[in-house]
Amino acid sequence: MHSVWWENDSLYIIDQTLLPREKKILNLNTLDLVFDAILKLRIRGAPAIGVTAAYGVVIGMREGNSFQRCFDYLASSRPTAVNLFWALNRMKSAFEKTSDNLILLNEAVAIHEEDRLMCEKMGEFANELIPNNANIITHCNTGFLATGGIGTALSGIYKAHESGKNPHVFVDETRPLLQGARLTAWELSEANIDATLISDNMAAHVMKTQKIDLVIVGSDRIAANGDAANKIGTYGLSLLAKAHNIPFYVVAPTSTFDLSLAVGSEIPIEEREESELKFVYSEQIAPKNIKTFNPAFDVTPNENITAIICEKGLLKPNYTKSIKMIFTEE
Amino acid sequence: MHSVWWENDSLYIIDQTLLPREKKILNLNTLDLVFDAILKLRIRGAPAIGVTAAYGVVIGMREGNSFQRCFDYLASSRPTAVNLFWALNRMKSAFEKTSDNLILLNEAVAIHEEDRLMCEKMGEFANELIPNNANIITHCNTGFLATGGIGTALSGIYKAHESGKNPHVFVDETRPLLQGARLTAWELSEANIDATLISDNMAAHVMKTQKIDLVIVGSDRIAANGDAANKIGTYGLSLLAKAHNIPFYVVAPTSTFDLSLAVGSEIPIEEREESELKFVYSEQIAPKNIKTFNPAFDVTPNENITAIICEKGLLKPNYTKSIKMIFTEE
Repeated sequence: MHSVWWENDSLYIIDQTLLPREKKILNLNTLDLVFDAILKLRIRGAPAIGVTAAYGVVIGMREGNSFQRCFDYLASSRPTAVNLFWALNRMKSAFEKTSDNLILLNEAVAIHEEDRLMCEKMGEFANELIPNNANIITHCNTGFLATGGIGTALSGIYKAHESGKNPHVFVDETRPLLQGARLTAWELSEANIDATLISDNMAAHVMKTQKIDLVIVGSDRIAANGDAANKIGTYGLSLLAKAHNIPFYVVAPTSTFDLSLAVGSEIPIEEREESELKFVYSEQIAPKNIKTFNPAFDVTPNENITAIICEKGLLKPNYTKSIKMIFTEE
Repeated sequence: MHSVWWENDSLYIIDQTLLPREKKILNLNTLDLVFDAILKLRIRGAPAIGVTAAYGVVIGMREGNSFQRCFDYLASSRPTAVNLFWALNRMKSAFEKTSDNLILLNEAVAIHEEDRLMCEKMGEFANELIPNNANIITHCNTGFLATGGIGTALSGIYKAHESGKNPHVFVDETRPLLQGARLTAWELSEANIDATLISDNMAAHVMKTQKIDLVIVGSDRIAANGDAANKIGTYGLSLLAKAHNIPFYVVAPTSTFDLSLAVGSEIPIEEREESELKFVYSEQIAPKNIKTFNPAFDVTPNENITAIICEKGLLKPNYTKSIKMIFTEE
């Protein structure tokens, strides 16, 4: 269960653009192939992109490219992906000490291993919150396809499954890009975890008619007060959980916290193109002339969050205090 | 703006299976064509089906079919559609008095005209609740495509538009069958009403970030206490509206009330096939082996409903009393 791995001195990924219809493994043995894989979303999820780019530097230099050429080229593949730059800068610091390709490979492996361990830790902390035979709702894709390990929000579910707790997951399909239907449903099924696909608008009915124990989601950015931005639909889900007295957990590594933002309303919300709402793959589903509103994220206010789980443990309200404490410990 | 109409002694419909990609008008001049149009959902929406079937009897008898043959054949087109039987039984009562085809046509026209007038009345009552320049959220399709007139929930919006109030409508796409994206977005656009398409999971973010004045939806069945079943997603929307202090209105003719059911939990919820969640038109969007849960409806409890609008006026809580009063007046 990996989205990206290094094996026999070579880089492999699962081509996520073909999921869930086909599981195809790609060997990315040139810089061009790594660039193309990131650009075309064959690999996606912030941590997974960072890991892939780190290995990409090693592959590019083996082909005879300069470090700078590898850095610049890969940096241009998805210029808004913060983790991409973070990983490339880690490789740059290593390169500034040595151009030895084996040492650079070790740095890429270290980046990957750190991400893997972070997922393991989040998984262990999250697992403590999951009862036996739990019914869980999740949103978007936050598992091994998105990270260098077993994921953020899904990590706890993997750990619960491993420890024989027999979790059952209701997977929000996650419109408009359907990451839940295409990716989460596929990866839970690969892992033999009991899962049921629903459309996003069924969550309230599921909460009312089934015994739901918890909702667990990831986050793209968390403000200093615990307000958490995540895939569109998360805020609504948090309100529905609150109305049904269901615990609502956010799982994200400490790198997700942005202490420069006091509150969630300061988090910028990307608006994406209208074609995402008017087409599903090649199928037109709406009039071409209709206006759309297509925010990629929304912000869940801290009061809707029962706890935030990061690799350092469980944060509880008051989040302003508990988040500050985690960062002060460093 | 009609989904079904009688013109030059002939029956016409818009083929809704081709919307929003193509607006094609069909002349249903044989019993077979009417049967096929209802069966294949070329015409859908309970009131619109009833009206079409009533005209279908006239067309079938003109071809030389017996009344009973027309009745049985059309009744088999969508055997779970209550309105279909209601309309066919109206035609039967008329036929029991006379087999004169012109009188039967008059009965079909009367059924259509009654439906049209009911929509007009609901529209006028609903319009009173809509302020100038209102931002409105709606769900599913409840306009002229679904009825013999200007609709149920959308009727108020049409009346507000007519009276120069300049409403703006956020249209939930309404997964899984996308009636909002395919039909409501199309009909509002045909009517030159300002509309914006969103995915269902964006409604909470829209309520938080835009000034939303009201949510207005239809209903398929209303219990004696005002609990209202409607397209899946409505219950969640009602909770989101409540959390944001936004009025939530249900518009439905009195034929929707089922006083034999004391509370909403007695309303049976149809579960539909998994292919609706795994495919969008021909595109596969989920693993073929994933389980699905696909309820077609959910139930909004009466305490989430600000008012119910029917052709007789506005019902307010306590609904058990106000509903009883409407039916006692008869």
